[in-house]
Amino acid sequence: MALLEGIRDPADLRELPAEEMPALAEEIRGFLVRAVARTGGHLGPNLGVVELTLALHRVFSSPRDKIIFDTGHQSYVHKLLTGRLDGFDGLRQRGGLSGYPSQGESVHDLVENSHASTALAYADGLAKANQRRGRTDRSVVAVIGDGALTGGMAWEGLNNLVGAPDRPVIVVLNDNGRSYAPTIGGLGRHLHDLRTSSDTWLDVYTRDGHVVEDNLFTNMGFGYIGPVDGHDVSACERAFDAARAMRRPVVVHVVSSKGRGYAPAENDQADHMHGIGKIDPETGEAPKSSGTSWTKVFADELCAVGEDHDEVVAITAAMPGPTGLAAFAERFPDRAYDVGIAEQHAAGSAAGLALGGLHPVVAVYSTFLNRAFDQVVMDVALHRLPVTFVLDRAGITGPDGASHHGMWDMSILGVVPGLRVAAPRDPARLRETLREAVEVTDGPTVLRFPKATAGPDIDAVVRVDGMDVLRRSRGLSLDVLIVSTGVLAEACLQAADILEDQGIGITVVDPRWVIPVNPALTGLAARHQLVVTVEDCSRTGGVGACVGQACADAGVRTPVRNLGLPRAFIEHGDRNGLLADMGLSGEQIARTVRDHHADLCVPARTGAETSPR
Amino acid sequence: MALLEGIRDPADLRELPAEEMPALAEEIRGFLVRAVARTGGHLGPNLGVVELTLALHRVFSSPRDKIIFDTGHQSYVHKLLTGRLDGFDGLRQRGGLSGYPSQGESVHDLVENSHASTALAYADGLAKANQRRGRTDRSVVAVIGDGALTGGMAWEGLNNLVGAPDRPVIVVLNDNGRSYAPTIGGLGRHLHDLRTSSDTWLDVYTRDGHVVEDNLFTNMGFGYIGPVDGHDVSACERAFDAARAMRRPVVVHVVSSKGRGYAPAENDQADHMHGIGKIDPETGEAPKSSGTSWTKVFADELCAVGEDHDEVVAITAAMPGPTGLAAFAERFPDRAYDVGIAEQHAAGSAAGLALGGLHPVVAVYSTFLNRAFDQVVMDVALHRLPVTFVLDRAGITGPDGASHHGMWDMSILGVVPGLRVAAPRDPARLRETLREAVEVTDGPTVLRFPKATAGPDIDAVVRVDGMDVLRRSRGLSLDVLIVSTGVLAEACLQAADILEDQGIGITVVDPRWVIPVNPALTGLAARHQLVVTVEDCSRTGGVGACVGQACADAGVRTPVRNLGLPRAFIEHGDRNGLLADMGLSGEQIARTVRDHHADLCVPARTGAETSPR
Repeated sequence: MALLEGIRDPADLRELPAEEMPALAEEIRGFLVRAVARTGGHLGPNLGVVELTLALHRVFSSPRDKIIFDTGHQSYVHKLLTGRLDGFDGLRQRGGLSGYPSQGESVHDLVENSHASTALAYADGLAKANQRRGRTDRSVVAVIGDGALTGGMAWEGLNNLVGAPDRPVIVVLNDNGRSYAPTIGGLGRHLHDLRTSSDTWLDVYTRDGHVVEDNLFTNMGFGYIGPVDGHDVSACERAFDAARAMRRPVVVHVVSSKGRGYAPAENDQADHMHGIGKIDPETGEAPKSSGTSWTKVFADELCAVGEDHDEVVAITAAMPGPTGLAAFAERFPDRAYDVGIAEQHAAGSAAGLALGGLHPVVAVYSTFLNRAFDQVVMDVALHRLPVTFVLDRAGITGPDGASHHGMWDMSILGVVPGLRVAAPRDPARLRETLREAVEVTDGPTVLRFPKATAGPDIDAVVRVDGMDVLRRSRGLSLDVLIVSTGVLAEACLQAADILEDQGIGITVVDPRWVIPVNPALTGLAARHQLVVTVEDCSRTGGVGACVGQACADAGVRTPVRNLGLPRAFIEHGDRNGLLADMGLSGEQIARTVRDHHADLCVPARTGAETSPR
Repeated sequence: MALLEGIRDPADLRELPAEEMPALAEEIRGFLVRAVARTGGHLGPNLGVVELTLALHRVFSSPRDKIIFDTGHQSYVHKLLTGRLDGFDGLRQRGGLSGYPSQGESVHDLVENSHASTALAYADGLAKANQRRGRTDRSVVAVIGDGALTGGMAWEGLNNLVGAPDRPVIVVLNDNGRSYAPTIGGLGRHLHDLRTSSDTWLDVYTRDGHVVEDNLFTNMGFGYIGPVDGHDVSACERAFDAARAMRRPVVVHVVSSKGRGYAPAENDQADHMHGIGKIDPETGEAPKSSGTSWTKVFADELCAVGEDHDEVVAITAAMPGPTGLAAFAERFPDRAYDVGIAEQHAAGSAAGLALGGLHPVVAVYSTFLNRAFDQVVMDVALHRLPVTFVLDRAGITGPDGASHHGMWDMSILGVVPGLRVAAPRDPARLRETLREAVEVTDGPTVLRFPKATAGPDIDAVVRVDGMDVLRRSRGLSLDVLIVSTGVLAEACLQAADILEDQGIGITVVDPRWVIPVNPALTGLAARHQLVVTVEDCSRTGGVGACVGQACADAGVRTPVRNLGLPRAFIEHGDRNGLLADMGLSGEQIARTVRDHHADLCVPARTGAETSPR
C-alpha cells in the first residue's frame, strides 16, 4: 500500500515512474479485493480496469480533461486515484461512498447515472461545448465497454461523434467480451474478430500510421487504434497519447479481462464476480444466504410455466443471471433470447414475437424499463399484444443508489392504455399473478417485485372482486381502509395491529392487480371514513394517485391520502433503512394514518359542508 | 388507372407482366398526387417507394410473408395494392383511412406505430417466432429508411438480426439520403460512399456471388446486396429474389429519391414535400395559411433568445424544419445540432452540453420525447442540468393518429424530480416562459404547445404567486375554480361565460408552470366549493391528478375533478373534433362543471360528515 497511499490526486500518480505501475496495480487489486469483500460491490469490472485507469490518469489531466465512465460501476480505481482511499469502508452504505461516480464526492466525477451506453452522448455534448467555447486543447475521453455498445444509445453516440471530423473525442472501448454475459450479436462477433485478428498487440508507437483493415469504426469515420493490451499500463499510455495526437474522433480498442488477477473472479464463469455481496476475500465464498430471493421464486415459477405453456418465451437484456432467466434458458435453450443491453429491442422484439403468436416474458430491472417506455406504449400496447414484463428490483433497491431504484415504474406505466400491473405481496401471489399474466391475450401485463428476500406467504381473509382483504377489524367500526401495494403488505399489517390497539378499525386490502384501479375498490372506499394508500413507488402518478382519482370520478367523498416515495432522487443505503426514511415502516404508516384520522375530526372548509350558493 | 383499378389484392399484381410495371407506377404516382393534394398527407416518401413496393408485393406473398414498413408513412402504395384504393378520399380523416398501416384496415398491415426505427425489432421477433414454430419457409421483410437507421433502436435490431446466421431476415434499406433532412453523421457518410462506390447499379443476377468490399453491414455479419436502383421494379425484384435465396440475414441496399416523379416535390429542397396539407396538384402550391403557428412563435422567439443568450444552443432529432429550429440554425449555424432520429442522444448530448456550461434547447415532438424518458430522468434531471425541452405537437395532434398525439408528456414528466413544465396558453406566454426557462440553472425545464394556429393573447386579470387569474366572477360567490392548462384556456373561458350566465361563480386560473403544482394553488382551491382541472393530456397522472394530490396533502377538502384525455389510444381526426369527443370544448366543460356542481348539493356518505367513531 506504500504507493497507493501516496496518491491523493492524479498529479501524484503522474509523478511516479512507469516502472512502479505493475507494483501499484498489484496494490490496488489487493485493496479492492479486501475492501469489496467487506462491503459488497462491483468487483470483477474494477479488477479489469486497473491498468487502464492508471494509464488514463497518467495521460490525461482530470478535471481539465474530461474522463467519463460509462455505467460507472468500474470507477472504484478512479476513486482510489482521486483521493477517496479512506472512504472505502463505507462503500455503498448510507452516507458513505457511492458505488458510482458522484459529483458531490469529487471534481473528477461527472456522470452519476449507472444506466449503460450514455457516455458517448455526454462526450459528444462536452466536445461540442469545448468547441463552442474555444477550449480545443482539452480532451474528452469516454470509457465504454463492449457490452454497452450493444445499446442503441451508444450507436447514436458513435454516429454523432464522427459528425464533425475536426472535433476530437477519444472513445476507449474496454473490450472484455461481455457485459454480465458474453456480448451478443453481430457486434460481439465483430469485436472478437478484431481482438483475434493479429498475433501480437499493436504497438502504436512503432506501427503508427499503419493502416488497419476496415472495421465497424473506420467505416463510421473513426480513427482506430488497437487492439491494445489492457493490462499493460505503458501500452495503454502510448495508445492514448497517439489517440490524442490524432486530433479527431478515435476509438482505442483496449482488450481486458473482467476479474483479472483474483482467482475466484477469473474462475467464475457466470459473470467473473460482476457484483457481489460480502465474501471471504481468501476464497471468494459468500456466506450462505438465508431465505429465498424474489428473483428465485420468479425463476422457478417461470420454468414451471414454460412446461405448461409452449408459447411462452423469455427475453433478457444482457442479464440472464441477475433476472433469473438463466434457469429458463437452461431448461428451454431455444425459447430464451439475450438481446444485449438493449431494452428497446427487448420490448420491440417481444412485440414481434407476440405478433408471431408467442407470449414473451421480458425480465428486466424496473429502472431499466424506463429505456423502453416508448416501445411499451407504441410497439406493444398500441397493438394490444400479450407481452409480460417482469420488473425485478422494483421500489427501493438499496446500495446502488439513485439510478437503480425502481421507483417510477407504476407511475409511468399507469398511463399506458390497456396495460395491467400486478404487485405481488408474497411468493404465492407472484406465482399466481405470473400464471394469470401469461393467460392474458389482449394486451401487456407487468409484474413488479423488489430486490429482497421473499417473506412468508400472507393469506387473505377473503378475496372479493379479485382483491385480497388481508385484515378486517372485528368489533370496531370500519374507519380506515389501507390500500396496500405489493410487498408493503407486511408493513401495512403491522400498522393495522398498532391502530387496532388504539381502537381504530382497519381494513387492509391488497388489490393484487393495482393498475388500472379495480372498480370495486371505490365501493370499498365509500364504506370507510378515510383511505390511505401505501406504495414503494413515486407518489406522483402512482397507484395512490390513481385510487384518489378513481374515487373522485365515482363521486366517493372519502378523503384519500397517498403514502409513497417523494418526488426526489434517493441516495444509496440499505433498503429497509431507506423505506423507513420515507415513512414506509409499519410504525410510521400507523402514525400517519392516526394523524390523518385525527384530522377528520377537525371541521374543514369544504364545498361539501356548506350548501352551495 | 386501368391497371391500378384492376388490383384488389397483391395476387392481382403478381399476375401482371413485368412490362406493365412502368405504366402502373405512373398511374400510382398520378393517383397519389391527386389524392394527397385533396386531403393532405405524406407525399414525398410515398412517391419514392412506388417501384420498391410493387417489387415487394410481386416477390413476397403477404400476409403469409410479413412485410413491415418502418415509420409507416410510406405505406400508401402498399394500401393501394391491398384493396384500399377507394378509401383515399377519407385519408387521415375521422373514420377514414389511417395515414399509417392499420391492423383494422387490412390483414396486410402489421405495425401501426409511426415512431421510427422499430421495424427491425419487429422483424427479429417475427423471425424468431417463425423459427420457433417451424415456419421457416415464410419470409420476414423489414423496409427501413437510411434516416431511421440513425436511431439507436435500429442498431439494436441490426445487432440482434445477425445473432443467428441461420435465421433469415431481409432488411430493405430504402436509402434516399435523408429523413426530413439529410441523414447525418458517420452513417450518412458511409451510405453515401456505398451509393457512389460503383458507376453502375449492381445487377444481382449477373453478379451473384460477387464479393463486395467490407461495409458496415458485412462487418456486422449481414449478407449485402446493392446498391440497387429503387426506381427499377425488375432490378428490385431480382435483388429480393436473390436475398431470399441466401437464407440468412441480408441487407438489400435500395437507392431511391424522395418525391420522385412529381416536379414540385423533386424541387423542394427542404424535405421533398415530406408531409403536406392540401395543395394544388398542378403547382404543388398550398393555399395561404391564415394565422401564425405555435411553431413559428417559438422559432422566432428562440432566435431572439439566441441573440441575448450566448450560452443557448439548439438540438433537433432530424427535424429542423418541423420543429422550427431551421431559423435558429440559419442564424447561428455553429450553435445548432441535428443528431439524427435519435431522441436519446438529443437528451444525452444536451446533458453533456449543459455540463460544459451551455444551455441546450431540445426541440422535439411531444410523442417522440417518450423515446428519451430515461435520458431526461437519468442524464439530465439526476445531474440537475439546465436543459430546456420544447415539446411541439403536444396534446391532440390530429390526422396522424394514435402514435402522434402528445398525450402522455405531462404525466410521465410529472414524476421527474426537479423538472418544471410550462404549458403556455398564448404566444405571449410562450415567449415569456421560454425566457424564464433559459434562465433556470438548476434543472430541466419543459414547454409544451400543440400543432395549431396560435390564438390571440389572453391577458390575465391579475398575476398572483406566478399564476395568472384569467377570470373572477363579479357579484357571484366563489363557487368553482377551473384550473386551466395551456391552450385550453380559451375553452375554459367559454365555459366560464356559460356558467356565469347560469349564476355559477367561476374563477379561472392558469398556473403557467403546471408541474410541479404551485403551492399557492391549494390555498386558492380551499376558497372554492369545487375545483375542476382541464388539460389536453392523459388524466392518469396528469396535471389534474397532481392538483388533486396536492390538495389532499394540504388537507384541503374541496372536491377536485379532473378533465382530460382518457386512458386510451385515440384515432386520427381533426384536432378540434377530437377534443370535443373528449369533452374538452367550452360547452362540454361547462356542462361537466355544472353536473359536478349539482352533485355537491346531494349529501354523500363521507367520513368527513359523520363524526368518527
